[in-house]
Amino acid sequence: MSQELISGTIAGILGDTYIGEMEDSALLELPGPRIAMTTDSFVVDPVFFGNGDIGKIAVAGTVNDLAVSGARPLYLTLAVVLEEGFALADLRRVLRSVRDAAIAAEVKIVAGDTKVVRRGEADGIFLNTTGVGVLERPFTLSSRALRAGDRVIVTGFLGDHSIHILSLREGLGFEQRVHSDCAVLSHVIADVLDICGDGVRCIRDITRGGLGTVVNEFAQASAVAIELDASVLPIRPETAMAADMLGVDVMYLANEGNLCLVVAAEETEAALKALHAHPECARAAVVGEVVAGADAGGAGTVRMTGADGRVSTVELLYGAQLPRLC
Amino acid sequence: MSQELISGTIAGILGDTYIGEMEDSALLELPGPRIAMTTDSFVVDPVFFGNGDIGKIAVAGTVNDLAVSGARPLYLTLAVVLEEGFALADLRRVLRSVRDAAIAAEVKIVAGDTKVVRRGEADGIFLNTTGVGVLERPFTLSSRALRAGDRVIVTGFLGDHSIHILSLREGLGFEQRVHSDCAVLSHVIADVLDICGDGVRCIRDITRGGLGTVVNEFAQASAVAIELDASVLPIRPETAMAADMLGVDVMYLANEGNLCLVVAAEETEAALKALHAHPECARAAVVGEVVAGADAGGAGTVRMTGADGRVSTVELLYGAQLPRLC
Repeated sequence: MSQELISGTIAGILGDTYIGEMEDSALLELPGPRIAMTTDSFVVDPVFFGNGDIGKIAVAGTVNDLAVSGARPLYLTLAVVLEEGFALADLRRVLRSVRDAAIAAEVKIVAGDTKVVRRGEADGIFLNTTGVGVLERPFTLSSRALRAGDRVIVTGFLGDHSIHILSLREGLGFEQRVHSDCAVLSHVIADVLDICGDGVRCIRDITRGGLGTVVNEFAQASAVAIELDASVLPIRPETAMAADMLGVDVMYLANEGNLCLVVAAEETEAALKALHAHPECARAAVVGEVVAGADAGGAGTVRMTGADGRVSTVELLYGAQLPRLC
Repeated sequence: MSQELISGTIAGILGDTYIGEMEDSALLELPGPRIAMTTDSFVVDPVFFGNGDIGKIAVAGTVNDLAVSGARPLYLTLAVVLEEGFALADLRRVLRSVRDAAIAAEVKIVAGDTKVVRRGEADGIFLNTTGVGVLERPFTLSSRALRAGDRVIVTGFLGDHSIHILSLREGLGFEQRVHSDCAVLSHVIADVLDICGDGVRCIRDITRGGLGTVVNEFAQASAVAIELDASVLPIRPETAMAADMLGVDVMYLANEGNLCLVVAAEETEAALKALHAHPECARAAVVGEVVAGADAGGAGTVRMTGADGRVSTVELLYGAQLPRLC
């Protein structure tokens, strides 16, 4: 594939979603001076999975990262690294996913780049998307804003994306029963913020590191403690079974379309109602509460009460992450 | 290397240049609503070369892309894909280059991402930088703005970066005599625009596709013809010799710190003076002129007069590019 063929293919498939000129800077107008900016590379293996592919993840991941910061996602760049020999038909399929996800997220692809490396120097296709969104709300979401009494909400089944990918990769046979949750959630987040305003303290996309990492970072940033109730955590039995087989803890598995929100107690019902209006968040539930550090294990700690009433600490795990889940 | 070690290393080495929070969206203030945005992935092989490395190229390339669009570069994101086993010492060296180039370019790194893939699934290290700059000038540079009588300026020796890298890779022995020209040129471009204003029609960083591609794209975009004088093109004898050995044409080789400017005739002397004030552009020279299509080979064509007086067409080449020069 020549550079020109690839550039032409990209521009052709992205269509109206693509307003940039490949290779050049895009000149853009912003509706306001306060922006959010984020970047992510995507190396998911396999490239295609049950209900998504690297193209969908690349758009959803970056759009969700912007949206959870309170921004309205506007512009994405798309950079492609291709291994020589990657099939043109597969590239087209990935690009159609990019286009469809960009349409769903109401963002434009404004600039692109393609690099081809020789066989064996990459694995199929890697993508990078970098996004800019505009901050238009009069309040700011922050992991430092948590207060005792706030509720912790999770919007979907924990670990599904990771188990789907790992099952495909390892041939475990769970991939038909546990699907990836990969989804664009910017419209969901906008709804919740429209309804609950600054009653929403903070939102995080549960990706690398899983819920265990998100809540620990929240607790540390706000110098509070968080108490989770294991009996209400949304976990599919098949996911729990697969995680057991793989020797991994669902609390630390990545999702790609699952949010953790911390919301003021009085806004919790409104937030859940707004979330339940979206099929991707039909399982949204309160899974825990923010408490003063002195009342629990100390500021920055997360504890979880098991179904048997036993309390354990949810540690902030360091160390190797599972590779290439996104 | 764990994810945390890598993130810590990145934040530690980038220091004050780094204002983002790895993994999160950066919240930024822009001085104006009109922005330029561009993205590039970098896969240069070898990672380290005579007078630069992938880190320097990744910053310089994106900063230069913003600057040639007339923007003042402000913010970069940095995404790293690492092959398992890539040495931490090498990562640190790359990051120091990123930091030094960001300081030289007066940009901040505002967000980052790191993905580790297994051995054999990438080749050492790949980077992506995506940049945002603010458009503050009352005029716009455009490849559609060329008029008959404008002069074409090239600021440095053609092909040096490519020959340096290819010589290193193929063991040709030219790498000590032909160095990469990789350089941040945003300050040079700002000077020229300050002095010549909209007398500057268009600027392009001569990268992939070389001067031959740049001038053809200019000629087509403005529906004019361009006439080049081969006898004044800045080409080192060693570069010409190496290109001959490799069977490649210097006109299509990439640089990483070489500009092609099209400037109104009456601003040419001022532009050259401004360029010569910078050591990176000490060799800046007029190499051609824009003419009406009807007076030459037709709109969109580029012709070059050789030292022997023979006129040839500089074609817009399609087809395979040399891999991994940047």
